[in-house]
Amino acid sequence: MQSAPFSAIDAAGRRPRWILCRGMERVDHTAVQQALPGYHDDKDAVLKRLRRVEGQVRGLQRLVKEDQYCIDVLTQVAATTKALQAVAVQLLEDHLQHCVQEAVMAGGDEARDKVAEASQAVARFLRT
Amino acid sequence: MQSAPFSAIDAAGRRPRWILCRGMERVDHTAVQQALPGYHDDKDAVLKRLRRVEGQVRGLQRLVKEDQYCIDVLTQVAATTKALQAVAVQLLEDHLQHCVQEAVMAGGDEARDKVAEASQAVARFLRT
Amino acid sequence: MQSAPFSAIDAAGRRPRWILCRGMERVDHTAVQQALPGYHDDKDAVLKRLRRVEGQVRGLQRLVKEDQYCIDVLTQVAATTKALQAVAVQLLEDHLQHCVQEAVMAGGDEARDKVAEASQAVARFLRT
Amino acid sequence: MQSAPFSAIDAAGRRPRWILCRGMERVDHTAVQQALPGYHDDKDAVLKRLRRVEGQVRGLQRLVKEDQYCIDVLTQVAATTKALQAVAVQLLEDHLQHCVQEAVMAGGDEARDKVAEASQAVARFLRT
Repeated sequence: MQSAPFSAIDAAGRRPRWILCRGMERVDHTAVQQALPGYHDDKDAVLKRLRRVEGQVRGLQRLVKEDQYCIDVLTQVAATTKALQAVAVQLLEDHLQHCVQEAVMAGGDEARDKVAEASQAVARFLRT
Repeated sequence: MQSAPFSAIDAAGRRPRWILCRGMERVDHTAVQQALPGYHDDKDAVLKRLRRVEGQVRGLQRLVKEDQYCIDVLTQVAATTKALQAVAVQLLEDHLQHCVQEAVMAGGDEARDKVAEASQAVARFLRT
Repeated sequence: MQSAPFSAIDAAGRRPRWILCRGMERVDHTAVQQALPGYHDDKDAVLKRLRRVEGQVRGLQRLVKEDQYCIDVLTQVAATTKALQAVAVQLLEDHLQHCVQEAVMAGGDEARDKVAEASQAVARFLRT
Repeated sequence: MQSAPFSAIDAAGRRPRWILCRGMERVDHTAVQQALPGYHDDKDAVLKRLRRVEGQVRGLQRLVKEDQYCIDVLTQVAATTKALQAVAVQLLEDHLQHCVQEAVMAGGDEARDKVAEASQAVARFLRT
């Protein structure tokens, strides 16, 4: 029986410890049901954004099929990459708010590794 | 009478004058059948790339639905934006190879305007 | 009385609490000497990178003064932006390793605000 | 003896043929004094922008020396990369307006190669 619903908030008003990111080691196993990603609470919003991006990519195919003007297609490609990068920023913020914070509170080397991993993820979005 | 197919090449080995980009004014109307975009010859390749990007965006939705780890999703978002930007570079090159070259050969202010337009399109992909 | 030098490490092997980022509120004032930025320990490395970027920008001016070929100048501009973005990733990682971690350990709303602020800083590097 | 000043405009109102980009082969050598880059007419403006970027990079070093807050430094790094990318867009536009147009008017394979080269230069600014 699962005693604590996902909406539970701990005494300090923090996100409950048992909503953890995958890959994290837990010292205290009492409440963990499963590892959840940092975007878990925003899942619907993230999926909605991704479905819209999918619609934009299909729109791009339609523009190309219809022989629309190159610059008009390019403008829409730019809008689509912009929408994708906004998804990335949301995922990053969720990851930092939940997974990285959990790692910091858990202590040890985990926090340092999580931050290094997140920084490398950002670097993949820049031209470094 | 000129009934040249789209694969025709002019005497100088240049892309035929009647494959023009939308929006271009033509002084000589004799051969123009219709305005075609610069990516016309690469249309299948562009569509294939866009279908692959669409597949990547659907893959992103699957990762999110399956609660996959934030960083793994972010890495795939980065790969998808990279693929989209490669489409943009192809469209830009096709546009410069055909539309801008046509405008230059047609002479007048058209060429200057086309180049300014293409530069602005590039600026939309950078953070300027 | 704690008169720990900046190189001191706490019992848990963590960066000392008194190396804090500017703008952070502290509950416990005993050990704080002054607020230090997250890149404090990497300051020399960051400055060295920035001096190299400055050299690259002066090199760009020399190329332009010497009428070097446009594409060669553009290639060096790209290398310079790449170097700048690498500085940004280092500053971000230092900020997350120190300032954000401090905020998380301090508890309260501070951590959430710090993470939102860092995410917005990343967004400024993307075209969102 | 140089008979045509750089400000000369040809009969068709086009930029004179003898302002060419480096690396271009010329069929007609009569007027060429030397190869000039596409940004030649904007040289002062480009240098002014680059000096301002240099000032920004020195400002970044000052912020770091003064232990300014990480996010404030990051914001200025973002502004500096933005300024550099604006230089890139100006150089690209000048290159397309002059060097690529010259190549197109000269005819032959030169134009195709110049456009491919410019597209690759753009790709270096994107994460492709």
